[in-house]
Amino acid sequence: MGIKTKDEYIESLRSLNPVAYMFGERLTNVIDNPRLRAGIEATGATYEMAQLDPDLVVTHSPLINEPVSRFTLPPASVEDLVARVKVNRKVANYVGTCHQRCTGLDCLSTLAIVTYDIDQKYKTEYYPRFIEFLKYMQKNDLTGNAGVTDVKGDRSLAPHEQVDKDMFLRVVEQKADGIIVRGAKAHQTGSLSAHQIIVLPTRAMGKDDKDYAVSFAIPADTKGLIHVVGRSTLDMRELDGCDIGNTYYSKYCPTLIFDDVFVPWERVFMCGETEFASEMVIKFSSFHRQSHGGCKSGKIDCMIGCALTMMDYNGTAKVGHLKEKVTDMIHRAETLYGCCLASSYEGKKQPSGAYFIDTVLANASKIHEGKEMAEATRTMIDACGGFVADLPSDRDFSNPEIGGLLKKYLKGVDSVPVENRIKMYRLAEKLALESADTISDIHGGGSPAAHRVTILRETDTAQKKKAAKRLAGIKD
Amino acid sequence: MGIKTKDEYIESLRSLNPVAYMFGERLTNVIDNPRLRAGIEATGATYEMAQLDPDLVVTHSPLINEPVSRFTLPPASVEDLVARVKVNRKVANYVGTCHQRCTGLDCLSTLAIVTYDIDQKYKTEYYPRFIEFLKYMQKNDLTGNAGVTDVKGDRSLAPHEQVDKDMFLRVVEQKADGIIVRGAKAHQTGSLSAHQIIVLPTRAMGKDDKDYAVSFAIPADTKGLIHVVGRSTLDMRELDGCDIGNTYYSKYCPTLIFDDVFVPWERVFMCGETEFASEMVIKFSSFHRQSHGGCKSGKIDCMIGCALTMMDYNGTAKVGHLKEKVTDMIHRAETLYGCCLASSYEGKKQPSGAYFIDTVLANASKIHEGKEMAEATRTMIDACGGFVADLPSDRDFSNPEIGGLLKKYLKGVDSVPVENRIKMYRLAEKLALESADTISDIHGGGSPAAHRVTILRETDTAQKKKAAKRLAGIKD
Amino acid sequence: MGIKTKDEYIESLRSLNPVAYMFGERLTNVIDNPRLRAGIEATGATYEMAQLDPDLVVTHSPLINEPVSRFTLPPASVEDLVARVKVNRKVANYVGTCHQRCTGLDCLSTLAIVTYDIDQKYKTEYYPRFIEFLKYMQKNDLTGNAGVTDVKGDRSLAPHEQVDKDMFLRVVEQKADGIIVRGAKAHQTGSLSAHQIIVLPTRAMGKDDKDYAVSFAIPADTKGLIHVVGRSTLDMRELDGCDIGNTYYSKYCPTLIFDDVFVPWERVFMCGETEFASEMVIKFSSFHRQSHGGCKSGKIDCMIGCALTMMDYNGTAKVGHLKEKVTDMIHRAETLYGCCLASSYEGKKQPSGAYFIDTVLANASKIHEGKEMAEATRTMIDACGGFVADLPSDRDFSNPEIGGLLKKYLKGVDSVPVENRIKMYRLAEKLALESADTISDIHGGGSPAAHRVTILRETDTAQKKKAAKRLAGIKD
Amino acid sequence: MGIKTKDEYIESLRSLNPVAYMFGERLTNVIDNPRLRAGIEATGATYEMAQLDPDLVVTHSPLINEPVSRFTLPPASVEDLVARVKVNRKVANYVGTCHQRCTGLDCLSTLAIVTYDIDQKYKTEYYPRFIEFLKYMQKNDLTGNAGVTDVKGDRSLAPHEQVDKDMFLRVVEQKADGIIVRGAKAHQTGSLSAHQIIVLPTRAMGKDDKDYAVSFAIPADTKGLIHVVGRSTLDMRELDGCDIGNTYYSKYCPTLIFDDVFVPWERVFMCGETEFASEMVIKFSSFHRQSHGGCKSGKIDCMIGCALTMMDYNGTAKVGHLKEKVTDMIHRAETLYGCCLASSYEGKKQPSGAYFIDTVLANASKIHEGKEMAEATRTMIDACGGFVADLPSDRDFSNPEIGGLLKKYLKGVDSVPVENRIKMYRLAEKLALESADTISDIHGGGSPAAHRVTILRETDTAQKKKAAKRLAGIKD
Repeated sequence: MGIKTKDEYIESLRSLNPVAYMFGERLTNVIDNPRLRAGIEATGATYEMAQLDPDLVVTHSPLINEPVSRFTLPPASVEDLVARVKVNRKVANYVGTCHQRCTGLDCLSTLAIVTYDIDQKYKTEYYPRFIEFLKYMQKNDLTGNAGVTDVKGDRSLAPHEQVDKDMFLRVVEQKADGIIVRGAKAHQTGSLSAHQIIVLPTRAMGKDDKDYAVSFAIPADTKGLIHVVGRSTLDMRELDGCDIGNTYYSKYCPTLIFDDVFVPWERVFMCGETEFASEMVIKFSSFHRQSHGGCKSGKIDCMIGCALTMMDYNGTAKVGHLKEKVTDMIHRAETLYGCCLASSYEGKKQPSGAYFIDTVLANASKIHEGKEMAEATRTMIDACGGFVADLPSDRDFSNPEIGGLLKKYLKGVDSVPVENRIKMYRLAEKLALESADTISDIHGGGSPAAHRVTILRETDTAQKKKAAKRLAGIKD
Repeated sequence: MGIKTKDEYIESLRSLNPVAYMFGERLTNVIDNPRLRAGIEATGATYEMAQLDPDLVVTHSPLINEPVSRFTLPPASVEDLVARVKVNRKVANYVGTCHQRCTGLDCLSTLAIVTYDIDQKYKTEYYPRFIEFLKYMQKNDLTGNAGVTDVKGDRSLAPHEQVDKDMFLRVVEQKADGIIVRGAKAHQTGSLSAHQIIVLPTRAMGKDDKDYAVSFAIPADTKGLIHVVGRSTLDMRELDGCDIGNTYYSKYCPTLIFDDVFVPWERVFMCGETEFASEMVIKFSSFHRQSHGGCKSGKIDCMIGCALTMMDYNGTAKVGHLKEKVTDMIHRAETLYGCCLASSYEGKKQPSGAYFIDTVLANASKIHEGKEMAEATRTMIDACGGFVADLPSDRDFSNPEIGGLLKKYLKGVDSVPVENRIKMYRLAEKLALESADTISDIHGGGSPAAHRVTILRETDTAQKKKAAKRLAGIKD
Repeated sequence: MGIKTKDEYIESLRSLNPVAYMFGERLTNVIDNPRLRAGIEATGATYEMAQLDPDLVVTHSPLINEPVSRFTLPPASVEDLVARVKVNRKVANYVGTCHQRCTGLDCLSTLAIVTYDIDQKYKTEYYPRFIEFLKYMQKNDLTGNAGVTDVKGDRSLAPHEQVDKDMFLRVVEQKADGIIVRGAKAHQTGSLSAHQIIVLPTRAMGKDDKDYAVSFAIPADTKGLIHVVGRSTLDMRELDGCDIGNTYYSKYCPTLIFDDVFVPWERVFMCGETEFASEMVIKFSSFHRQSHGGCKSGKIDCMIGCALTMMDYNGTAKVGHLKEKVTDMIHRAETLYGCCLASSYEGKKQPSGAYFIDTVLANASKIHEGKEMAEATRTMIDACGGFVADLPSDRDFSNPEIGGLLKKYLKGVDSVPVENRIKMYRLAEKLALESADTISDIHGGGSPAAHRVTILRETDTAQKKKAAKRLAGIKD
Repeated sequence: MGIKTKDEYIESLRSLNPVAYMFGERLTNVIDNPRLRAGIEATGATYEMAQLDPDLVVTHSPLINEPVSRFTLPPASVEDLVARVKVNRKVANYVGTCHQRCTGLDCLSTLAIVTYDIDQKYKTEYYPRFIEFLKYMQKNDLTGNAGVTDVKGDRSLAPHEQVDKDMFLRVVEQKADGIIVRGAKAHQTGSLSAHQIIVLPTRAMGKDDKDYAVSFAIPADTKGLIHVVGRSTLDMRELDGCDIGNTYYSKYCPTLIFDDVFVPWERVFMCGETEFASEMVIKFSSFHRQSHGGCKSGKIDCMIGCALTMMDYNGTAKVGHLKEKVTDMIHRAETLYGCCLASSYEGKKQPSGAYFIDTVLANASKIHEGKEMAEATRTMIDACGGFVADLPSDRDFSNPEIGGLLKKYLKGVDSVPVENRIKMYRLAEKLALESADTISDIHGGGSPAAHRVTILRETDTAQKKKAAKRLAGIKD
């Protein structure tokens, strides 16, 4: 059936053999590399949660007539839209970071709407192709990874205007059995934790950008695909196996190079229909911004827990201004969550039968994220204290000459073992300062400016002007 | 049937004869006083909307088995909770100010839950009494006004500790047929636009505050009840009939003195059950904070319309930073709205069968209101220009000696009649600076500090600590 | 000598006979009109302060070799620049509103620099003319009023592009003995409290805007000059003589129409030198933005005093979150003040010998004002309580039927007379909601966008890029 | 003479032999350890700047009658106070991080005031001792490191109430020739870059905390002193010699353990005068908060340079919202700088003859820092783009198999070498995410709550209340 356990998920990744580099070295074993494994574990938690809380995560797919994970289910009702938010908050709270499986679902949710719309206009067959792909994903409970963000080159130029035409991923050849694509996608969170890479265009395309209006899916180890894992602030910690703040989970973000990759036609979901690039990216980014709202409120929940525990450990649990700061954190989490929930509840059925959220409310949530996650982080650091910056290493604590002294001096309230306080400081450092995680607060789902443009464009400003004119007594 | 037209509503008020003072004078005709009438018209718009948009406002009451206005309907489903927000946003957008009918509904919604709970514990008969009162309200489509905020005296003291025991409204005598109450309620928005005054306690009560734990309803013209209409910034404008920014609507806020008022037992809904005062005020304030979220997002809609129209009139419609500011305003409106909608959708059935919202999300919305309405206002003023402050009077514009010159110089873009620009500036002034309206952004539904205390108290912080400890690898 | 008493100042205004309108009526006695008088009293406080604190306000003028008020002294040293800020803070704290004399001084300070620069380039005689005018101002301790903000018409068009060419004040005729000017200046705070109107251009001018590049000074009662006093929120209070929050002072803002006004050449300080319009407006607006920083920090001081006193009266002096809010208010006041002081201390000598402030720091202060005054106001209202919105009238309090009841119920802590609490609420209303005063926080000295453009333009961004490149190891 | 070159400074450190640990290992060569060396270089830049800009950094010391670096000069005039801010901004702009030499100067500046005050009261000899120490520092151009922040244990308890009495550093024995001290100081930025450790108490002390009221100076390699270098986010980068964002400089923060350390009496500057602990910590923290204002505005300058350069490289230099964000960054830098400058210019002479800044203005600046550095950082990341999070390693770029592809795809605008873009992204990462550096924005100089308490306490609130009462017409 369509539900894998976490162990099955991890084993299933072993059958893939992706080309991956990190720190200049070709990786031979992705799964057991401690840095990548911590990310894979985070995605694994989405499988684990299907066992721990099946009511929340497991549902029925009419398509394959089997139980499936919500992580492979394009929403087909308001209830499904709502579940997206609740599942993301719960999993994020469980892993304390990005679980890295939302982007694939956001692609599936987008394609379930847009491929149908393209077919309606062009009599193409993208929708049935997509449905076959979806069945495959559901039957095998696979993880998809969204390939959206092109590297973009000179941002003042359109794709076809670039000096190097490959700065946006494009079709370089169309063949009888498929297409050859070339380009690179940046910030591919969890691309090595995924079975399938699902590519969408990164922006609206003009009529001269026909080759760039392309969408498809391929296995993560397809020939010509190269994953280059970028550096992040704390990347050596998992590799060293020391001073890891989050005991179980982490995040990593490769740059993904498509070095003349072949895609068979049955996995191509758009190819040249430039005017639908815009719809695709708007739908995807709206879904993804909404995913963030659930996810990041769950991460703030962890930060709240960290701050409150640290206050217990420091003897500051009753300090007024710290309680105010925790209240601010709660307020931020609930704001992200509330706007996202509302965007689900206000969702509408699309022509294909799939459901789409309220765009304005989803973007309203994301605008808050872009600013408020940084504030929540700052507040957590404020509540925890300065050792978030410069706690001695676990190796210092276990050094026989100085370990005793360090433990003596790191003690907080008498009733709490010093080891717990040390661990909680380390978690605070991870929550606050893991770049792979925190920078997605700002740039994930597009830049803050993009969210703002969206809400202005999607708002009925004419109605508002009309209401004001009536009140002012203006007839026109 | 249970639906009045606006005209019927206004006529129905004529049958009341309340004791009312304004500027030191006893008012003999409340309805036709231009200042009060503008407020009554705003409440009238809730009746008008039942005709204009019956799908939104009119629903069926199982209680009287008739169509009723949602303004007399305690929510009995999630759909009803959601409608609260949407109705409030729509009416507020229509009137550009407070419609003044939500507080009564918030009382009905509260009593529909709490009177039942009291009866369960004490075998009292408050719930059936309340249901009779509710039928009366629904059958006659009446407007209620919430009497909640006591004048409070020395705020460092509990009710029974005050030097003057009347600083919180209290029962001074219990008689066979009813009770005598004494005290004063402040900021009674629209008390002269209402048929009934519905009183709830303003805070939790201790066991020594038994006389203060009282709830009841009485007609707005009951003997001993004195409405003293307070001053507001623009109160003379309607009285003068000149330089009125909002052509139709306004708001006013009396202080309401209960000078030994008799209440018959059939209208008493709590009397001495001190431990339920807290539940009553929490339920009421949560409902009322949610009402604000719908209402104030609708008011921001007007402010957005005003800013955008003014930009059209000034020739600044394409100025980048002004578009950014309008985007900020939209973001604020949607944040209030999104959190409130979510608080409705996440509502839960209570023992009585009535529904209650999610408190944390409703308060999250109100915290934003307390800060963001001021920002939206500031932004509107910024977008409109300095004449929000000091526009010459309409009487100057019609003065034969200087009117022509003024009209010449007040002209904006050539295609817009100068009169329209003048009117829109006047509306901006009203939206920004009518104290009766704007200060409720801060103090309506309790002070900002109260909202913060609520979300901290209602949040499951233990779960968050537990999640953080697990991630940090702490067992305890 | 050059120092008038307050009484002498007020008497000196009686000798003027300006054409002034208010509410459609021609005013026959400006000085004793209660609304205008409250504004005149605020300017009078600048004369009073010269007696109360001569060390601060009185200095020596080498020009006339007499003691003069700093309000007629273009800064000739860093000490003078610093005194500007301190005098403004002190007077603002004393009057609780705008004293309305800074704009004239800001004009004098600007002309003391720019007329010299023009003469250097064009061999004109503006500087000696200005010096004669300055001597006249100093010898008689006169108040000037800046006429800067044109009404602007369609803001997307330059002055010469307007359909009506008079939307920016311009020279319509040059004659042997002087010039004829036409146009209107908006938001002329205190124009009827001033002896002289000093006109500067409102923006940079292009070569086609030659007629608009004009600066001059004329008596406030010059033929053709029409003062139309605009409405403000609380304007009827002084006229009624009731419910006035600030016992002594207020502010008013006329629109000033120049209906073909003759200006003799000896009072013309620029006429057609378009490229200096920009310097003039930049210098003036920088000086004026700095004036705001001193003034508005002094006003926040009053708001802090009001909030703290109200907390004493309400029994909330020890409430933690209110103390935090007062701390926020202090922080805002000191930020405005600190940046302005620094802009003075970092001032530099100009070619004429006069001193000019650091523009970036002055604008940094003003950007804060634009946002933080609204926050300070919101915070004060929060700390005071809801009666800022809707306090009954003094006429209600003195009404024999209800006055006693109202006084009973408005009582706060037992030791404070209820009258004091009522008065302090009334002051809070005035401080928060007098539009003539509060909207200058946003638009005074140009809009917030203008301040931002200024600091970006005046900052040495090349140096900052160079420093970053060096650190990154980039050679170019 | 009293001015060392950078090379002499570094050589002078070689003569010290401190006990230092990092990652569980005893360090044998501190100076050439790449991680620590990057910090030492930052302090070295203060010596280099004395050569590069002697007018700014070098001054005359009357004490030794020689030229000295301002980094060893307690301010003796307003000019000296101002120079503190300007020197810090310039050096911070030069090193792009903390130069780590301000804390020692802040101690010298504090002791130059407080030791004199103690002597006045107690006829002790701390001041002459301190002067001898100061001569030694000046003659040898030494760097001091402030040991202030105790580890604090249970923060709800005073020093003497702690279960372990050593949680605040204390005197455990007084001997004929000196004292023995025990305890630990946290967050000792640059302790291994300093010649001398200067200890002050971390808080006000009560009469039972006599042993904790102690101040002294000792060489950084004194017996019993153990430096344990804490972890920071990017600490492995310098150790690996790869992916270092700031080519030259960094920061590190040890925990410093005083394991029964002997201090000779001639270096003891307070011992048991509990009531002066408060003055010492207030003076120090005010000086240090002011140091931050100069320093952090200089760091923002680097961030502005980084953002602007990145915009050039990305082709986004003309994007309106990015220019707005850079304007925000400038505004933040100038706010910190302006308030700090003002705090210097308003400084006052103290009884000893040394000068002290205006505390309120210095704390006003620091409150902004605590919030605005995080905003500046967020804004820089926003302007730069997502590769701040996950740029591939330099080792990937130089890998023969994928290096070419990576360079192809990381290219921005055509005219900029890809290597420059890569380097600038790496610098952005370092500026944004080096925990040793960024967390001092929040906790350096005490927590944000401490700054707030200070400005409330130091403000003349009585004057403000008096002014408000006068305006309200209240006599009392």
